[in-house]
Amino acid sequence: MARLVLKFGGTSVADLGRIRNVARHVKREVDAGHEVAVVVSAMSGVTNQLVGYCRDASVLHDAREYDAVVASGEQVTAGLLAITLQSLGVEARSWLGWQIPIRTDGAHSVARITGIDSPLLLERMAKGQVAVIAGFQGIGPDNRISTLGRGGSDTSAVAIAAAVGADRCDIYTDVDGVYTTDPRIVSNARRLDKVAFEEMLEMASLGAKVLQVRSVELAMVHGVRTFVRSSFADPDAPQVNERGEPVGTLICDEDEIVEKQLVTGIAYSKDEAKITLRRVQDKPGIAAGIFGPLAAANVNVDMIVQNISEDGRTTDITFTVPTADYERSLALIDGLSSAISIEQVSGSKDVAKVSVIGIGMRSHAGVAAQAFEALASRGINIQLITTSEIKISILIDAAYTELAVRTLHSIYELDKT
Amino acid sequence: MARLVLKFGGTSVADLGRIRNVARHVKREVDAGHEVAVVVSAMSGVTNQLVGYCRDASVLHDAREYDAVVASGEQVTAGLLAITLQSLGVEARSWLGWQIPIRTDGAHSVARITGIDSPLLLERMAKGQVAVIAGFQGIGPDNRISTLGRGGSDTSAVAIAAAVGADRCDIYTDVDGVYTTDPRIVSNARRLDKVAFEEMLEMASLGAKVLQVRSVELAMVHGVRTFVRSSFADPDAPQVNERGEPVGTLICDEDEIVEKQLVTGIAYSKDEAKITLRRVQDKPGIAAGIFGPLAAANVNVDMIVQNISEDGRTTDITFTVPTADYERSLALIDGLSSAISIEQVSGSKDVAKVSVIGIGMRSHAGVAAQAFEALASRGINIQLITTSEIKISILIDAAYTELAVRTLHSIYELDKT
Repeated sequence: MARLVLKFGGTSVADLGRIRNVARHVKREVDAGHEVAVVVSAMSGVTNQLVGYCRDASVLHDAREYDAVVASGEQVTAGLLAITLQSLGVEARSWLGWQIPIRTDGAHSVARITGIDSPLLLERMAKGQVAVIAGFQGIGPDNRISTLGRGGSDTSAVAIAAAVGADRCDIYTDVDGVYTTDPRIVSNARRLDKVAFEEMLEMASLGAKVLQVRSVELAMVHGVRTFVRSSFADPDAPQVNERGEPVGTLICDEDEIVEKQLVTGIAYSKDEAKITLRRVQDKPGIAAGIFGPLAAANVNVDMIVQNISEDGRTTDITFTVPTADYERSLALIDGLSSAISIEQVSGSKDVAKVSVIGIGMRSHAGVAAQAFEALASRGINIQLITTSEIKISILIDAAYTELAVRTLHSIYELDKT
Repeated sequence: MARLVLKFGGTSVADLGRIRNVARHVKREVDAGHEVAVVVSAMSGVTNQLVGYCRDASVLHDAREYDAVVASGEQVTAGLLAITLQSLGVEARSWLGWQIPIRTDGAHSVARITGIDSPLLLERMAKGQVAVIAGFQGIGPDNRISTLGRGGSDTSAVAIAAAVGADRCDIYTDVDGVYTTDPRIVSNARRLDKVAFEEMLEMASLGAKVLQVRSVELAMVHGVRTFVRSSFADPDAPQVNERGEPVGTLICDEDEIVEKQLVTGIAYSKDEAKITLRRVQDKPGIAAGIFGPLAAANVNVDMIVQNISEDGRTTDITFTVPTADYERSLALIDGLSSAISIEQVSGSKDVAKVSVIGIGMRSHAGVAAQAFEALASRGINIQLITTSEIKISILIDAAYTELAVRTLHSIYELDKT
């Protein structure tokens, strides 16, 4: 017997038929003797509709009112799933954020969970009652509903799993796990049985859209074993592997991963734009003078490379920003104080970032060199490089994205088990 | 300066355009210096959709979950109206039932309000902040959302008006007041300036669908002056009468009505079915033996007449039930214990109830006789009669409904001011 938290996203609860499917997944776990809490999102499309209402009512809407409006979507799903579970003979009740309560810092529309009062939940779960919890929401110090930001239901699920000391947090989604890379680009991409928290964090933030970055961070901090699996598998006879375990990807502590791979996956992101500042006068404080205003304007600068130029008195700076912030960033650079002399500003949105990720890199040299050689052999020009302990990111011309991903996936033999 | 509670129903908040219209009504009252609380229903159609979801999820759904699902509709409207008010420069915030809190007896889906904690509301209203309150909902002793039953937003508004000691509760609706009868039947029906609580109670329960019966009861008990007016009037230049007062109907204590009319209005209901039991053995306990099982089955028996039949040993009993309960009632009668001997059961759904209402009747004889004569002169046969201090109800063939209403409206001169 285990204590489980199951999370189902918007597409998994899109209509009453799918909610019934979810209920059968839950019933299977209850019948197996587990204590179960379920976290649900709004029915797909509902949140967008509610957000649209708020925007149409006023462009500058009060985030507290936005939260009251938008949180209603998860409330509906939670009630409907509880009703459906009861109709299958499973004891269940819905819980809204304020009822548990799930306490937040009260930062409306972008709240962070500060604590969850779990005794009552645990008591009910121990008695065999399934707790159906509205995701994405909590209550702030102002006694008002605060939402966790888009995709916040993943975060709710992991936070609840941590609070109730769950043995596992199952994230049911529209894919059956985390892959070595995007299967739409590399047809023989392989589902990973296990991924370390650190690796998943890099994959999530680099564009693999399976899990929200915040929920992975939270899972890592609290050591919540998080299992990504498919909500579209047959609930009554889910796929199992050769060891009889359900099919999916377990995100866990690296200690739990016996055979560590050198490279675990290849991620990519086309949501990158590059800006180059040429012959910037090289003096102390220049980086702060440029990146301070961008940070103040909430532009999330990612890769930064600075070189001394030929003359030795000026420097060239290149960095990337999200595509959506490209024009705004150029305008901000243009409006910089005249104290910062920049001879030329250029940029491009036609770039992509390809990343090689793996905790095995820590103890192995040569992984980066292998990537550079492989890309060069394909005639792919490297524009920028940044590295961390477990990751190498390379900025290239966007047109070569798929070729680069396939090349890297192949040289690290990710298609082989 | 006055303290006002304004209530807007589903059709008045059907979309963002109409919500903006509502906001302008509210702003007008705020600009006039009043303290304002607003009670809103769900956007029209939303509650039906949510109720449908619950029914489709399970015919026998948990009323506690139903409440959590259905109450979300008012939550959305409250947030959107608060946002819209703010966009017009009016300080406002939304309040959900559990935030005030509006306490109920916890009878899910049919809850009754037991108390409202008003100090915080009053404090905010005194500071000029409009309280936008989600109608139809409260919180029960189980710390869960409980709804007040369909049309419960009227009741919410009146209860809140009583709790905050409002000078008036304005019910904005799709008609501009209470009429002497249905204007679709009598084209010269007249809008009443004032109606006594007791009269309105009879009109509401007899088929004039302007206000929920429960809200009128509550208004009477707490002496809440309730003003029925149109939400479709121009918010910035609402219609006023010759005394500069807004157009509508005030429902108030009869002491406030200076010129009392003999008859105030003619109501009718086609939602009636008649059942006649012939030659029922006349012995003690016979009425209880018949009406007990009907009451136990939640059939709301309305008019009852019992006559001794010719033989002197048996009795004939005729009564009416709502049309929807007709077949069920016949089945219940059919299944009565053999201890009750009934020679013949007959009935009809082709009947209608027409009622003459007026507090003036109390002190004037002859009102009933006048009605009987007028109907007889038109050849309308009277099937049943019941009377109270301020009302005469007559059951007739449904085909004559409109003729009867027009005839009665005319003989009491209700078309004349």
